[in-house]
Amino acid sequence: MIIKLDKNISTVQKEQILLTLHGHGFYLQENGQSSIIRITGKNNVLPKEKIENLPGVEVVIDSDRSYHLVTREYRPENTIIELDGVSIGGAEPQVIAGPCAVESEEQILRTARLVQSAGVKIMRGGAFKPRTSPYSFTGLEEKGLQLLSQARRETGLLIITEVLDTADVELVAEYSDILQIGSRNMQNYKLLKAAGRQQRPVMLKRGMSATLEEFLGSAEYIISQGNDKIILCERGIRTFVEYTRNTLDLNIVPVIKKISHLPIIVDPSHGTGRRDIIEPMSLAALAAGADGIMVEVHPDPPASWSDPDQALYPEQFLQLMEKINQFIEWRKNAAIKSNP
Amino acid sequence: MIIKLDKNISTVQKEQILLTLHGHGFYLQENGQSSIIRITGKNNVLPKEKIENLPGVEVVIDSDRSYHLVTREYRPENTIIELDGVSIGGAEPQVIAGPCAVESEEQILRTARLVQSAGVKIMRGGAFKPRTSPYSFTGLEEKGLQLLSQARRETGLLIITEVLDTADVELVAEYSDILQIGSRNMQNYKLLKAAGRQQRPVMLKRGMSATLEEFLGSAEYIISQGNDKIILCERGIRTFVEYTRNTLDLNIVPVIKKISHLPIIVDPSHGTGRRDIIEPMSLAALAAGADGIMVEVHPDPPASWSDPDQALYPEQFLQLMEKINQFIEWRKNAAIKSNP
Amino acid sequence: MIIKLDKNISTVQKEQILLTLHGHGFYLQENGQSSIIRITGKNNVLPKEKIENLPGVEVVIDSDRSYHLVTREYRPENTIIELDGVSIGGAEPQVIAGPCAVESEEQILRTARLVQSAGVKIMRGGAFKPRTSPYSFTGLEEKGLQLLSQARRETGLLIITEVLDTADVELVAEYSDILQIGSRNMQNYKLLKAAGRQQRPVMLKRGMSATLEEFLGSAEYIISQGNDKIILCERGIRTFVEYTRNTLDLNIVPVIKKISHLPIIVDPSHGTGRRDIIEPMSLAALAAGADGIMVEVHPDPPASWSDPDQALYPEQFLQLMEKINQFIEWRKNAAIKSNP
Amino acid sequence: MIIKLDKNISTVQKEQILLTLHGHGFYLQENGQSSIIRITGKNNVLPKEKIENLPGVEVVIDSDRSYHLVTREYRPENTIIELDGVSIGGAEPQVIAGPCAVESEEQILRTARLVQSAGVKIMRGGAFKPRTSPYSFTGLEEKGLQLLSQARRETGLLIITEVLDTADVELVAEYSDILQIGSRNMQNYKLLKAAGRQQRPVMLKRGMSATLEEFLGSAEYIISQGNDKIILCERGIRTFVEYTRNTLDLNIVPVIKKISHLPIIVDPSHGTGRRDIIEPMSLAALAAGADGIMVEVHPDPPASWSDPDQALYPEQFLQLMEKINQFIEWRKNAAIKSNP
Repeated sequence: MIIKLDKNISTVQKEQILLTLHGHGFYLQENGQSSIIRITGKNNVLPKEKIENLPGVEVVIDSDRSYHLVTREYRPENTIIELDGVSIGGAEPQVIAGPCAVESEEQILRTARLVQSAGVKIMRGGAFKPRTSPYSFTGLEEKGLQLLSQARRETGLLIITEVLDTADVELVAEYSDILQIGSRNMQNYKLLKAAGRQQRPVMLKRGMSATLEEFLGSAEYIISQGNDKIILCERGIRTFVEYTRNTLDLNIVPVIKKISHLPIIVDPSHGTGRRDIIEPMSLAALAAGADGIMVEVHPDPPASWSDPDQALYPEQFLQLMEKINQFIEWRKNAAIKSNP
Repeated sequence: MIIKLDKNISTVQKEQILLTLHGHGFYLQENGQSSIIRITGKNNVLPKEKIENLPGVEVVIDSDRSYHLVTREYRPENTIIELDGVSIGGAEPQVIAGPCAVESEEQILRTARLVQSAGVKIMRGGAFKPRTSPYSFTGLEEKGLQLLSQARRETGLLIITEVLDTADVELVAEYSDILQIGSRNMQNYKLLKAAGRQQRPVMLKRGMSATLEEFLGSAEYIISQGNDKIILCERGIRTFVEYTRNTLDLNIVPVIKKISHLPIIVDPSHGTGRRDIIEPMSLAALAAGADGIMVEVHPDPPASWSDPDQALYPEQFLQLMEKINQFIEWRKNAAIKSNP
Repeated sequence: MIIKLDKNISTVQKEQILLTLHGHGFYLQENGQSSIIRITGKNNVLPKEKIENLPGVEVVIDSDRSYHLVTREYRPENTIIELDGVSIGGAEPQVIAGPCAVESEEQILRTARLVQSAGVKIMRGGAFKPRTSPYSFTGLEEKGLQLLSQARRETGLLIITEVLDTADVELVAEYSDILQIGSRNMQNYKLLKAAGRQQRPVMLKRGMSATLEEFLGSAEYIISQGNDKIILCERGIRTFVEYTRNTLDLNIVPVIKKISHLPIIVDPSHGTGRRDIIEPMSLAALAAGADGIMVEVHPDPPASWSDPDQALYPEQFLQLMEKINQFIEWRKNAAIKSNP
Repeated sequence: MIIKLDKNISTVQKEQILLTLHGHGFYLQENGQSSIIRITGKNNVLPKEKIENLPGVEVVIDSDRSYHLVTREYRPENTIIELDGVSIGGAEPQVIAGPCAVESEEQILRTARLVQSAGVKIMRGGAFKPRTSPYSFTGLEEKGLQLLSQARRETGLLIITEVLDTADVELVAEYSDILQIGSRNMQNYKLLKAAGRQQRPVMLKRGMSATLEEFLGSAEYIISQGNDKIILCERGIRTFVEYTRNTLDLNIVPVIKKISHLPIIVDPSHGTGRRDIIEPMSLAALAAGADGIMVEVHPDPPASWSDPDQALYPEQFLQLMEKINQFIEWRKNAAIKSNP
């Protein structure tokens, strides 16, 4: 159960509530937002109605769901993340583009200039790369962060990069504008909490086989620590399908927009693993109501140190951007509101 | 292996080829198109090169794939199905709309007038319904076909309806403009062959867990009998996902458009099972390059005898059509070519 | 809803019930067993309680499920299929063995002698083969049936072989002791009904992505036509897994044994596609409570015309049989009752 | 590529190799075992053969696979983990039993006495619990570890418990005999490395949708840090199936035994989520060749704070142990060697 307290609750009232709940065998889990407390335990001992009658309690949400603060019931309007004049979750979708991994100064600067020239505002690039094998290239680490920083200085692009471990959250937050939590760590709850305790926006990528319940439950871990600047990202699920690396599941886009106030973007590069279908799937993502897309582009894809089959060639990327801009223009005119 | 014969091959040459192949332990499978023969057997006994040297052989395709005639290698240009002035697979996408099942004269006529008023050219409606339980409503059968026929007479709409069994192919072909083969029968090869031997266009719905290989292999069963008027239909695959009835897999749309010359349409009604996301997923399907969509609409969805949660209300349908028409207009202008 | 009528119901009473139901908008679907009628329609119009009070009604089962006659609620004790002194579903598990397809007289007779020498009572072998490609070997058809018949005469083995189409049911039933309905046809409802109308036992293989509901719903199609001699067969489901051709799902075995009175056997050959793990998975199937296993064995697997990677070599098969016999002996002694 | 160096390589030779590789654009990744180095980079620049000719190089493994040290090619014989007289991976399978979570002193001590009385040597119990919702009970944390420690003192049972974060590895290793890394963290590579750098045995649970490649790749992360005391654990994968919480995939057991020298155990409690089929699936796991099973048992399952549907009742557990002991006895006699 989730208990929302009156904003003007007194300290004594709050203590009294906690004591009562504790006395009935409930566990209390509190976060930074003092007006929300969550309890776990046996409902039949102290039913919802009794708790609602305690002084200082505004409402009790007797939810089966793993989440509450991420829902539109909690916050009806869209969450719009503003960052140096760039907004995510607003009327206009954003494109995030860049290489899979930061490889060298030349590579990242060339890519930065390319994406900036196409009107992109946010660049991706991995400095810490999770890889299936311990013997694969796992990123330039802090050196990679520094190169991203340099790219930002030279182009004004915002930077998003992945953080893999609780111990690195501060370091990555120092260099990056947005923290990315990858699919493999979607249920690394200590990392989610650490991301929730700092103030950078967080992009949370859906796990390979995450249900909606689990995806939003993970977002709730972040928001429950006080950080509501969360961008959800659909990046393909694991199915039996053999013609795409993963199955990009666009259906989740309108479903999320109904349930949650958080923005959701789509990553067709990881979602399909095929650069030859990035363009139609990007347009499809936007038509489904996504708040943006994230794509991989590399100055020389076959030379890429990771995922060479899915990065776009520069000319492909420029053509994609043209199509996307046409589409955005249309979406604006047609007033297809992606957010109900 | 697939053997393409010279167009001017003599009967004697052909017999000689067949004898040679047979003598080397190959099975021969021939279809109506006399210039294509297929053989199965042990490749090492008589290698491809030897067969190619036989007089009258144009080319030998030593394919691992289950299909050939459906590919762009066989026919580079799009197959466009023309039907009473309506074309499927051409520049303009088609909307197919109607109820899950034909229930009554009033229901089907009301729906026919509705969809026609919105500019739709083709109406769907099941007369034979495959159902998980033998105790569910399985359709009005021939009576249903007659009602569909009546709707066509009154509105001029083309009709598409499902055929479940080889024995019914002729009957259904008599009443319907397009034959539908459903997901559960995607690998009912006798039915596929029977559909291939008649001349109506056939819509082949993807099986619940069909790979691309299997989907196109099934289309090849139809085309190998001489009927190339095939419309593929993506209608959702079975995954772990809990928020949609199936996982509508739009990724297959651009993949099919690359490999095959056949048109492909998308059924978001069965693909998602949720009427509240039909609109965004329909637009997404078209943005991904689909040649059309097929949606369920019912005058009174909660009263529908099957699948009441996925049929659109009339007003929802009209709004959907407006959005689709805007989108089609844009797609035309932007010259986003869905077919490479 | 499913309505069970009193055994001594009068014709007048029955007509009265049907009229009443019809008058309230229910559809009636009746099968050969006159004491069971099923209705479909709107429950709220005529609630279960009212129907139960109609004269001649014994009980009304207000079931969400797609099936009833296959359940232990309907028949608590195990269904044991007796066939020329061989019983399936009884205390002792059965092994069904043979090649994927009948290829030649020599091949089928050699295999028949091999499996018989190892104590097997039932031989498998495909005469009609469903194949993904129209250009693959699809079986010797009636010639194959004749060869199976010959093998039976020479060895006394019972024969099981697949039927693909309604039109072939009689032909196959003439030659074969047990009819097999394959995975691809698990929801070919016309075929299921036709199999239910003849008197041979039917082995129903689970579809690639069939839920329990769908699997038992399909068995219900057969039993509702009057044929209760049904053997269920788990043969692997389609998942993301890459090291087996399918994912053999042994979990369904104890689940089926709880819900249904029908025997269930396991096919590890198709279920895994790897002959190197047939032995452990066969023992695992029996430990899970299966009523038998079905395995592919071929005199010369690499020369097999279909599925060469999954057929056992003769010596592997003999070793498997030794292990299975040891295990069966143990299961008997330990009195592990597979059927609760 | 993986490079195995001569055991007697000189420091100068090793430096020379590293310099050469670096000069050709390879990345070097070295672990504690000085005789193994791994490189990543472009193979065509410096082919395998050239590297093999460098002085001091014993062999170069040009592997597509993500792992090497976990394979039977690297170590043909089974890895047997010896721990206070208990061996895992040896001739006799082990049963690990206990509650999902440590809840109280009384609960854990009652369970400890129960499982010990049944002959179990290793008890499970979660002190840190990963949960989908931030508002669920997430374990007693260090207090839970202390209670497990107390149970060990009173019963002599070995303890296994989960560690969720790199920062807790030392703490958990202090209290626990075996560290468990859960499904959600199977690809938390920093945690895997930290577990590889300490000396306790590690049980690695398969991720929800982990391929074999990914599962063994994760084990390789641990072993590459010098800790080869790894126990793999199959615990069910995510599929479309609706009658079990997950699909316990026993097929991986014989596959792993072929490829890897590491022991593998099976967790039917999480794998199925149904206590009513734990017994048959446990026996099936052992018949498939598993080195043990891990099951949940609770003094009062309905009162359990987590997963109440899957924990066995005490009497069920005792019956299970009896069956398992019978089976182990048989397996010994029948000399069914689970490890080829």
